[in-house]
Amino acid sequence: MRFAVTYRVVAADLVEARARANDIAVEQTVEIPREIVPGGYVEDEILGRVEAVEPVKDAFSVTVSYANADVGGDFLQLLNVVFGNSSIKTGMRVVSVDLNDELTGLFPGPRFGRSGLRAMLGVPKGPLLMSAIKPVGLSTAELARTAHRFALGGMDMIKDDHGLVDQASAPFKERVAACVDAVHKANAKTGGKSIFIPNITGTAKGFFERALFAKTAGAGAVMVAPALQGHAAVQELAADPEFGLPIVSHPAFSGANVIAPANGFSHRFYFGQLQRLMGVDAVVYPNFGGRFGFSIGECQDIIKGCTDDFGPYAPILPTPGGGMSIESAPGMAEIYGEDVIYLIGGALLREWDDLEGACRRLANAVGRTG
Amino acid sequence: MRFAVTYRVVAADLVEARARANDIAVEQTVEIPREIVPGGYVEDEILGRVEAVEPVKDAFSVTVSYANADVGGDFLQLLNVVFGNSSIKTGMRVVSVDLNDELTGLFPGPRFGRSGLRAMLGVPKGPLLMSAIKPVGLSTAELARTAHRFALGGMDMIKDDHGLVDQASAPFKERVAACVDAVHKANAKTGGKSIFIPNITGTAKGFFERALFAKTAGAGAVMVAPALQGHAAVQELAADPEFGLPIVSHPAFSGANVIAPANGFSHRFYFGQLQRLMGVDAVVYPNFGGRFGFSIGECQDIIKGCTDDFGPYAPILPTPGGGMSIESAPGMAEIYGEDVIYLIGGALLREWDDLEGACRRLANAVGRTG
Repeated sequence: MRFAVTYRVVAADLVEARARANDIAVEQTVEIPREIVPGGYVEDEILGRVEAVEPVKDAFSVTVSYANADVGGDFLQLLNVVFGNSSIKTGMRVVSVDLNDELTGLFPGPRFGRSGLRAMLGVPKGPLLMSAIKPVGLSTAELARTAHRFALGGMDMIKDDHGLVDQASAPFKERVAACVDAVHKANAKTGGKSIFIPNITGTAKGFFERALFAKTAGAGAVMVAPALQGHAAVQELAADPEFGLPIVSHPAFSGANVIAPANGFSHRFYFGQLQRLMGVDAVVYPNFGGRFGFSIGECQDIIKGCTDDFGPYAPILPTPGGGMSIESAPGMAEIYGEDVIYLIGGALLREWDDLEGACRRLANAVGRTG
Repeated sequence: MRFAVTYRVVAADLVEARARANDIAVEQTVEIPREIVPGGYVEDEILGRVEAVEPVKDAFSVTVSYANADVGGDFLQLLNVVFGNSSIKTGMRVVSVDLNDELTGLFPGPRFGRSGLRAMLGVPKGPLLMSAIKPVGLSTAELARTAHRFALGGMDMIKDDHGLVDQASAPFKERVAACVDAVHKANAKTGGKSIFIPNITGTAKGFFERALFAKTAGAGAVMVAPALQGHAAVQELAADPEFGLPIVSHPAFSGANVIAPANGFSHRFYFGQLQRLMGVDAVVYPNFGGRFGFSIGECQDIIKGCTDDFGPYAPILPTPGGGMSIESAPGMAEIYGEDVIYLIGGALLREWDDLEGACRRLANAVGRTG
């Protein structure tokens, strides 16, 4: 069976675009000059096949198909076939992938997805709310107190800042235990179902140990930065039946993958399709209008990647964050609708004297009822 | 103790550059609005500190220092502090890092480096030669035969194509065993010290198993693509005393990290400093003048990153490849001098009828004697 990848390719004209398309087909598979590709299996199956070359705005859309046999069941080799060496060529960008049942059967995707997260949080409709405990350098007690107050204010998901790892000021195990407890105590008061979401990082081996510790300690989900930890590690954690919690993905260290429009990956692929392929349930990314430079169009591209039909994979929740405020929240509803997690950190922490009230004002501002 | 990161920052003027520098200092550490950063430890230690803002060509050079305490001994948190969220902002690029003894003490760096590799290969001076067995889709026997012939021709290092994983056509264990055997048999004939270098990939856990299998099977080194496998996995493998082989790094999937000049990482940092920090001994990257777009200046920047003084880390070997030919080899000597590994794959495979002779012509062309 074959699967297809669509690229955006910069070229002066159709002739050059076709040449670059053939180049991708060779580079991503056999990586030897075309004229010495062995006939038979290698040429007929392994060699990439150019399926389409069409002009699009300021560039060309190129679709190349590849054999499942080249992937060999290896998640990283799938990524390598999609965009290994070609990532280093100028003016080539991955737009989207179209997989097949045999491949998607190997990588189970989101365990919870949008509907699973809503069920866990007891919020069947309306936007979900997330905040973050921070900054690094506070003690475990201070961070746990913040988590407690966010939960009292009705935030559905309270996550670690992505810079919280195992610093001496708030060691991982101590922090997770204290924050889970703080959120549970708030739930007991409010009747809510807020969850605590620790940031999981560490060595290749330690990563899994921390994730399992978080589960045992009562965390509701975990957060991982795939560009730091590695995309296979996230895929493996999501697929691990012993783990079985939702995964929130953080964009730290990933900026270069999307930021140059002619290279890297489309927002739709990187923050949408790839996340679902890994098994992520909610993907954090910088919202438009905040302190990062994503446009409304790029954010809509992410929504598409999170929710479009994509094999057997459930839709997941876009989680825009970064510089949001209570004031800017209503405008976001027009873009995101109901199926979104609003991540607001700094803007709530500014209201420390009445943090719980600020959380409720945020809920009102985004039209969250109940 | 503190360490420093130098960024290239795009700004209209010094005032904007200073504002963006302050922004980095906040974003990479506390990630809350500056005015609510808690006084005391968080403000005095954890918060990034702008050390310098100076105009450079078309941009500004910004140096920010960070506390070791923020890193918490975690390799990925070090990368996250260097360029986590700021990677998603436009016009910011990591130029270089300046670490301190406490940090470099945590990450032991290259086990072999340039001199260790030379000693292992028995080549005290002159350029080293590397080739690759490929394409994916050939049988184990065909790949092993190619490895044998490269070794007969005197190539010092014979590596897997980076697309060779565990495909049915040449399963990992079978391939490694056969290729190691083929290279050893050639060494027995020639008296040479050629080594076979398998490509190591797989799940987060399987990666280490394969690396250890490769060692037991007699591989001379392993190749890993850090942008695929994850930078911590490579660091952990290099530091593992049970492993203890040299590591060759491959650039697959990493292109976006360097290709847009205003974002991501300098070539010096990404293909130099970062590799040494991970413990890589030789770094493959696309040579100038080949089918990729790196300039001579960018390649010289990589040499600098591989060989400049950098804490306790040994110099490592730049390994330019991608579209090299026997004809272009002499021009490369002017840029690289002696301390280089020339990686030539496709251009040698074109000469299949006299592959051994082509290897010898290459050796002559680059001035390799003995």
